Amino acid sequence: MPAQTMEELVSLCKRRGFIFQGSEIYGGLQGFYDYGPLGVELKNNLKASWWRTNVYERDDMEGLDASIIMHRLVLRHSGHEATFSDPMVDNRASKKRYRLDHLLKDQQENVVSAVAQAMGFGNAENFAALVAALVKNPEQAEQALNAAAVRDPFSGEAGGWTAPRPFNMMFKTTIGPVADEDSYGYLRPETAQGIFTNFKNVVDSTSRRLPFGIAQIGKAFRNEITPRNFIFRVRELEQMEIEFFCTPGTDEDWHEHWLQARLAWWEAQGVPRSKIQILDVPREDLAHYSKRTYDLMYDYPTLGYEEIEGIANRTDFDLGSHTRAQSDYNLSATVLPNEDSVAKLVIPHPETQKPVVPFVIEPSAGVDRAMLAVLSEAYTKETLENGNERIVLKLRPHLAPIKVAVIPLARNRPEIVEKAKAVKAQLQALGLGRILFEDSGNIGKAYRRHDEVGTPYCVTIDFDTIGKGEDASLTDTVTVRDRDSMEQQRVKIGELSAFVAARLKGEVGELVSVG
Amino acid sequence: MPAQTMEELVSLCKRRGFIFQGSEIYGGLQGFYDYGPLGVELKNNLKASWWRTNVYERDDMEGLDASIIMHRLVLRHSGHEATFSDPMVDNRASKKRYRLDHLLKDQQENVVSAVAQAMGFGNAENFAALVAALVKNPEQAEQALNAAAVRDPFSGEAGGWTAPRPFNMMFKTTIGPVADEDSYGYLRPETAQGIFTNFKNVVDSTSRRLPFGIAQIGKAFRNEITPRNFIFRVRELEQMEIEFFCTPGTDEDWHEHWLQARLAWWEAQGVPRSKIQILDVPREDLAHYSKRTYDLMYDYPTLGYEEIEGIANRTDFDLGSHTRAQSDYNLSATVLPNEDSVAKLVIPHPETQKPVVPFVIEPSAGVDRAMLAVLSEAYTKETLENGNERIVLKLRPHLAPIKVAVIPLARNRPEIVEKAKAVKAQLQALGLGRILFEDSGNIGKAYRRHDEVGTPYCVTIDFDTIGKGEDASLTDTVTVRDRDSMEQQRVKIGELSAFVAARLKGEVGELVSVG
Repeated sequence: MPAQTMEELVSLCKRRGFIFQGSEIYGGLQGFYDYGPLGVELKNNLKASWWRTNVYERDDMEGLDASIIMHRLVLRHSGHEATFSDPMVDNRASKKRYRLDHLLKDQQENVVSAVAQAMGFGNAENFAALVAALVKNPEQAEQALNAAAVRDPFSGEAGGWTAPRPFNMMFKTTIGPVADEDSYGYLRPETAQGIFTNFKNVVDSTSRRLPFGIAQIGKAFRNEITPRNFIFRVRELEQMEIEFFCTPGTDEDWHEHWLQARLAWWEAQGVPRSKIQILDVPREDLAHYSKRTYDLMYDYPTLGYEEIEGIANRTDFDLGSHTRAQSDYNLSATVLPNEDSVAKLVIPHPETQKPVVPFVIEPSAGVDRAMLAVLSEAYTKETLENGNERIVLKLRPHLAPIKVAVIPLARNRPEIVEKAKAVKAQLQALGLGRILFEDSGNIGKAYRRHDEVGTPYCVTIDFDTIGKGEDASLTDTVTVRDRDSMEQQRVKIGELSAFVAARLKGEVGELVSVG
Repeated sequence: MPAQTMEELVSLCKRRGFIFQGSEIYGGLQGFYDYGPLGVELKNNLKASWWRTNVYERDDMEGLDASIIMHRLVLRHSGHEATFSDPMVDNRASKKRYRLDHLLKDQQENVVSAVAQAMGFGNAENFAALVAALVKNPEQAEQALNAAAVRDPFSGEAGGWTAPRPFNMMFKTTIGPVADEDSYGYLRPETAQGIFTNFKNVVDSTSRRLPFGIAQIGKAFRNEITPRNFIFRVRELEQMEIEFFCTPGTDEDWHEHWLQARLAWWEAQGVPRSKIQILDVPREDLAHYSKRTYDLMYDYPTLGYEEIEGIANRTDFDLGSHTRAQSDYNLSATVLPNEDSVAKLVIPHPETQKPVVPFVIEPSAGVDRAMLAVLSEAYTKETLENGNERIVLKLRPHLAPIKVAVIPLARNRPEIVEKAKAVKAQLQALGLGRILFEDSGNIGKAYRRHDEVGTPYCVTIDFDTIGKGEDASLTDTVTVRDRDSMEQQRVKIGELSAFVAARLKGEVGELVSVG
């Protein structure tokens, strides 16, 4: 049974060291989070799984890691300078600033209906279109918001609204010691642009032919007006993006391929198909460059269905926008003229061998949102036979931050401690992730802690292990405890590596669950 | 024999897809680089090796991944707002701006001597002190630079210099939709500060006691006035930093421990002890917070000895600067008053159990500089018996971007291609890194390419493999070619995984080199 509320996840994440508020000791910085000792492992495991599936296990993918700060012309020709904005509105009385769509969603239904009617909509059913109309007609919008008595969530008062206007979400910074009008750049709002601008470099250095893709994992930055919902809507995020380049005409088939491939990956992370809705984005809501987009909507606790990944058919818009000699290539997308680019972003057509700007399919997922979904699915509250409750994080072994905790039963017995450290080193050498030498508390507390952080196995070194117990036949054996079944088994140290490796790799069935 | 010049490394990196100029298609952005398909693998392998050694294989380390954008108060109390600057000077005639120390290093020796004498120095031997004096006495400095006829490297003309002044190297950006005087933050200039500000969070969530460390890998940003020397001095860099917290009084021993530990790590990456000089930074050149610092200086091609890692004893300066109630803890370092922090950054003293601000040892290495050193050491030019020359990148197997290239001898024979893909999938499942299905050219070109990018093994699938050759006993065998010795060996497919794994893990000796 997954998490029921966002609160229980937030509480676990803070208590156990997954996620902390950014700059917390100075009051925190809204929309920024720090990943703690367990968070960094879970995040790295998720990223490694994505990279393995999409780069290593395919024969048509290359990797990339482009810089975060980019030339202003990249973001101009990508369209972000003109259109990467959120609708913003100010309140004259409270001096507070809101994202318009968030503000309206927080209002009573009849207030939103009144706004819709004032804008000439019969009702507020097409919410996206209503917001777009408000931004497009600022004066009429100002009247509508005030006449409908939209309330300021901060003060609780109705009215006082300015005309809405777009707010560009890119973070800007000055590069170099001279601050003049040409010396700025942007923190990339998505990793994708680094892939498009390196298209030619990758083709030239790898001899790739169509179809093939480029995959990238990295930070992206969006100056959200109102970051919220924990790590769901943040200002500094991490993306896992693929740009898959294909021959025009094959794009629809590849779009379907990627939809299925990505659903399979989510399933392998423990996010079941039944918890994901596929939204075939209606034509009128599509971004102008998109031919078709599937949004994967995951059923988050408290939030409900929200986007966890977008899979877009972006046609030849991106490479077409960044290429020079645009008019030579019979582009299908409408692009802004580009007199700045020095490169032709083309590749031979597999049949005609003539240079063509390929179409692109973009599966784009957020690492932070993925973590939230994975944590939510793994979160389990169980009532034990003795009536006690336990929280257990039933993460897939490949995602678990700690694979095995090795626990010396007595912290003050050097032979036991030394043996535990040796067992830890032996298991660490498997190269399957973090093995923890755990001596921070008593055995009961250790089990409870490792249930909560999703450690698949606890290995205990006791007096029997060092030949000081009652049963001499138990010398050089350890107790292995299974997270999910809580069953314990005595295993010889000489067989422990194989025992653990087989189970962590999933070769010896799934973990048996009592749930 | 390592690389002789930086040029040959730069050329290889571009040609083979390790590293490209950032935003290249728009003329490039100085000081920013993008890591291509091979660069991202090498970088990830280096980072994984560092994490394995410093987090996984120790019992006294936790990991962290803090946000890049930080609260302005973090960088104020860390001292960066006031002192993280480079000396800058303008030329009135050319309108160019220079980093003062770089400018002086580009001058004739007698010019620098004249500047030194004008500033009251007998000679220019203590260069750092001279630069410091120039910035501290701007008016006298302006006279000295002009009187000594320092030349502008751009125009070649002497004179025209303004008074030098410090230039803060932090990138600043506005956070949130309101741009007022309190709404800015900084891109972190080092990952370290995210560790200090999370000290209490990590202690509370892990129950760590002294001594223990926190390790972090991530991007940092420095607005260098004159980025140069390829990826050596860049504006966007990646760091691998440890803050190791210990009881005051044990700090000197831990400092020595970390010096040896870090040298051993560099050796394991193929950077030999003989190529690193340890600079025990003279007291007068130490940063004010440092009790002692070892700079590891690597002998880079063309550049000569330059810093590859710094290992500093930072005393209780950092935690003392960020803690509240500073006066309660009898700090050894001189810190600025802090009325902003809400947290006490203390931990029980292991003997007295009284709260203490621990001392910190900081081994801090750059990923980009590490890559440059590793590439430089691995770069080998060999003359073969037939008189031909080959370039081979003798990377340690754990660092190689591609572990094995699986090559179908004939691209147009489906049985060979399918068998090659199956062998690739079989080796990929070992989980030892990227295995490449390589069908981009003929076998000779493939060998040459994989020598240059450091692939330890090439596996060829030919007609014999599929039972269509002359010798039926070779069915289901492949040819394995060793990068360094260029020797070839026929191996059964059923034994190939074990054969390759043992060698990649270094269990079957080192690779035999003909060099």
